Amino acid sequence: MLVNGLPSASISPKDRGLNYGDGVFRTLLVRQGRPHSWSRHYLKLQQDCAALQLDCPTSETLLSDIAALSATAPNGVAKIVVTRGDGQRGYAISATQTPVRVVTLNPIPVFEDIHYTSGIKLHRCRLKLGHQTRLAGIKHLNRLENVLAATECAEAALPEGLLEDEDGYLVSGTRSNLFFIRGRTLYTPDLSRCGVAGVQRERVMDWAKEHGVECKVAQMHFEEMLRAEEIFMVNSVFGLWPVGQVASYKRSEHPTSWKIQEWLNDENN
Amino acid sequence: MLVNGLPSASISPKDRGLNYGDGVFRTLLVRQGRPHSWSRHYLKLQQDCAALQLDCPTSETLLSDIAALSATAPNGVAKIVVTRGDGQRGYAISATQTPVRVVTLNPIPVFEDIHYTSGIKLHRCRLKLGHQTRLAGIKHLNRLENVLAATECAEAALPEGLLEDEDGYLVSGTRSNLFFIRGRTLYTPDLSRCGVAGVQRERVMDWAKEHGVECKVAQMHFEEMLRAEEIFMVNSVFGLWPVGQVASYKRSEHPTSWKIQEWLNDENN
Repeated sequence: MLVNGLPSASISPKDRGLNYGDGVFRTLLVRQGRPHSWSRHYLKLQQDCAALQLDCPTSETLLSDIAALSATAPNGVAKIVVTRGDGQRGYAISATQTPVRVVTLNPIPVFEDIHYTSGIKLHRCRLKLGHQTRLAGIKHLNRLENVLAATECAEAALPEGLLEDEDGYLVSGTRSNLFFIRGRTLYTPDLSRCGVAGVQRERVMDWAKEHGVECKVAQMHFEEMLRAEEIFMVNSVFGLWPVGQVASYKRSEHPTSWKIQEWLNDENN
Repeated sequence: MLVNGLPSASISPKDRGLNYGDGVFRTLLVRQGRPHSWSRHYLKLQQDCAALQLDCPTSETLLSDIAALSATAPNGVAKIVVTRGDGQRGYAISATQTPVRVVTLNPIPVFEDIHYTSGIKLHRCRLKLGHQTRLAGIKHLNRLENVLAATECAEAALPEGLLEDEDGYLVSGTRSNLFFIRGRTLYTPDLSRCGVAGVQRERVMDWAKEHGVECKVAQMHFEEMLRAEEIFMVNSVFGLWPVGQVASYKRSEHPTSWKIQEWLNDENN
């Protein structure tokens, strides 16, 4: 673990990341020392920092941190946290800030093969996401909704959960983005009021473009999803998991999802 | 500053308080070494911890921390942060948790006299609060909405801002609760969908009970507030500030607010 580039296992208890969740983060795969989809992750980090008026570390700085950590462990999941650093008491952002970056590298989790083949059983979360257009899409450190939703999944012993918003529209997984396929069209929820727009979601949209498949970003209800031929969840760590079961929906064959899965696994895409 | 009772200026970067805002906090006045309204603050801390399935430190433990800190500085603003501590990667709450408590004592800020007498000018925040019934009322560490709102106030050079929710209902200040008076009735916004229910808000309700004044907790619009005879904001640090101006509303005399202000200043109430 590196804090501002130095081996350290501590940050200040006055850090605004701790006190207010005032910061952003990224989670990404590192293989053979190479961070997967780096340019996309860095662009998203820059955009998220800008949305919170937070100074973003340079790409070189972060790549150097990751290189230092992966010298001894070439494969892992890198987590980058950027906070607004030490703050005087009070919520307001002051003109001067000294952001803190924390970069960690953890072992790549091992998931069950069946999650990738016949697919996962998806928990439908009771927690409904609130709306906040000023924070929607951003991977910020205010993640209590995800904590509560993921705890529901753990209690149900299911690997991922489906999140809807307070108006009943589909949003995402607790730590992933959602897609479904009907006919020749790919659908994914609109994230302008809540949810996190992940890098893997962008990559799936690129797959669609490359393959002449229309991708519709829309406000949709749970029932519309159940009429899909295929449903799948994506994130930067597990890649793509087809959904084998959710409510009355059941599938064991996911031909298009498997193709996208393979495409996503190729780091050159 | 004490971390788990020990003088320390560091916490783990793996702390769930930092990574997810997974924790709660309290801010309260300490005078002559005595924490103001302690039993109320501790009860609220217990309730907030329970709502997040977080183990709450005992009252004795926290009082001992505050006593240690106030030995050298008897007057100050104590801040208590309780987080779920170090976490393995992943949002879900695990069965075993080792909460971390951070107790700090800072100097009491000095506010302008005019805030207490003729009152403050209130900024009407452009940011509208989102709804989350599972987190409403709790003083948790996900405070990015407050950060954005307070930054608006700082930019407007005004001491406090008014927050409404996405449906246009009144909620609170950025760091305080809101009351207004019409006739013989006190009004304060319903906080079941967003906002923080502070200890000072409870004390104002107790004042009302003690003085035979009805206090209505309701969903109300900005325009209803403008028809009030008096408007005021309360929190545990500044006490009570009458509102002298907001939009078309202007008042310099606040007879009932001043009475409540005096009552709140008495630590025995």
